[in-house]
Amino acid sequence: MNHSLQHIAIVGGTHGNEWGGVYLYELWHKQTQLFESFPFEVECYLANPKAIQANRRYIDQDLNRSFLKAHLKPEKGANYETQRASVIAQELHDTDFLIDLHNTTSNMGQSLILSGENPFEDELTRQLCAHLTRDPLVRVYHIPHTSGENPHLPGLARRNITVEVGPMAHGTLDATIFMQTKLLVNKILDYLAAWQNGVARYYSGKLTVYEHIDNIDYPRQRNGKLAAMVHPERQGQDFMPMKPGDPLFMSFSGATLEYTGETKCWPVFINEQAYYEKGIAMSLTRQSLISLD
Amino acid sequence: MNHSLQHIAIVGGTHGNEWGGVYLYELWHKQTQLFESFPFEVECYLANPKAIQANRRYIDQDLNRSFLKAHLKPEKGANYETQRASVIAQELHDTDFLIDLHNTTSNMGQSLILSGENPFEDELTRQLCAHLTRDPLVRVYHIPHTSGENPHLPGLARRNITVEVGPMAHGTLDATIFMQTKLLVNKILDYLAAWQNGVARYYSGKLTVYEHIDNIDYPRQRNGKLAAMVHPERQGQDFMPMKPGDPLFMSFSGATLEYTGETKCWPVFINEQAYYEKGIAMSLTRQSLISLD
Repeated sequence: MNHSLQHIAIVGGTHGNEWGGVYLYELWHKQTQLFESFPFEVECYLANPKAIQANRRYIDQDLNRSFLKAHLKPEKGANYETQRASVIAQELHDTDFLIDLHNTTSNMGQSLILSGENPFEDELTRQLCAHLTRDPLVRVYHIPHTSGENPHLPGLARRNITVEVGPMAHGTLDATIFMQTKLLVNKILDYLAAWQNGVARYYSGKLTVYEHIDNIDYPRQRNGKLAAMVHPERQGQDFMPMKPGDPLFMSFSGATLEYTGETKCWPVFINEQAYYEKGIAMSLTRQSLISLD
Repeated sequence: MNHSLQHIAIVGGTHGNEWGGVYLYELWHKQTQLFESFPFEVECYLANPKAIQANRRYIDQDLNRSFLKAHLKPEKGANYETQRASVIAQELHDTDFLIDLHNTTSNMGQSLILSGENPFEDELTRQLCAHLTRDPLVRVYHIPHTSGENPHLPGLARRNITVEVGPMAHGTLDATIFMQTKLLVNKILDYLAAWQNGVARYYSGKLTVYEHIDNIDYPRQRNGKLAAMVHPERQGQDFMPMKPGDPLFMSFSGATLEYTGETKCWPVFINEQAYYEKGIAMSLTRQSLISLD
């Protein structure tokens, strides 16, 4: 991919109760002089104003699952997020690099989420990830949708990254998390600027990527109510390895349920609030090493 | 007060997205044999079923602010929580001791909230608090409503205690927090049983109580949006002393705003999610010592 970087979009409020991006937008869209020195245009963009107003993840359906190509021309009477996805697709279609800001109740630290079949074929994406993961709190999580199947907002742009920072309760701000996010986005912009100017630092060696394998749900009763919680030894252990036989869930009576998978994995999005309704207690990943050269 | 303990109520789901009480109800109301050995009847009670179903704090208004005496005979067409408060007041009116289970995104540990003008005039309440606060994670927070002004659910009963456990994101379960709550309620029941049987351990000396002084809001912009966050040095420091000049808030640009009060205080409910809409960033308390003898 050889598109130069002309238009960069920083998107907040794709989920209306994830306040990191909402308040970074609030801060940045009033201070456009901050971005004047960059060799590209930086647009700050608020994705789901109604959900932000209501302080909810979404109004009718998850906006960040509303971008399948088939849905981008909504029918008359389509729900709010379907309509909104269509507007966003028009307004951001000419974006060279999109940064979508999210928060999670999971202990995800500062995660970079890449989707698409193989985003690491792109040298800039690969090098940017290598640059950012010099900080051990920054990790790369890859969700390999095939093209045409990606329902996420950032997939609109030629290149994109989702910045997923936690733990932070939805509908709140944590100053440490907020400042970490602000620094991380500045670091991304600085690297993109150096790349555009032909002076970016080049990394060799390997990049560690956590590749999505599967989602697992909580144990549930027949009526759908929970039958267990994430085990205390697993809670907060995002990106830490889990072996067959390790404690996974705990019943309300205190019984331990073990991980019965066959191979070691690295769970992420452990106990994310918004994923209870999606039937996801955590996502399982495997570590892989990608050559930077 | 010399009422003997005949009817004990354990109430969950007063706020529909505080899942500790909701799932303790789920566990306990099916296992009534657990309570058969106690010298009193133990009733498990779910306060706000519609809000639980919707996974929201409330449907129309905060149920736990709906119990002013004037409101207990709702008019025709009254909203859901007003009607529900009236039903609960009838169903729980003959309760000798009520335990209301709550969770918070604040780092409140295992807090016991007592309201009313002087709940510590009651010897059982005083001794129970002394018994429970042997664990340093258990602290006593007193909100001195005058009688007739108490809008909280637990005030329906002759004696009551609110168990407020955190930090836990609303709409989630944290197994450690859940198990702590379960143990704490069992400890309360055991002490009440010993009291009723005349064999309760008696404590002398002093009880440390955090007395409510005031609430303070976040710095806000003219349009009501936030202008700052809880400072990283204050975040999570519930029940820790704050002196004039200590960091209190941080602006989005990173500027520190200091506490400008005149005397030392002990903030609680720091950065509770549900209190943003109430205009409360934290509550300030002062430490006081109550004689147990």
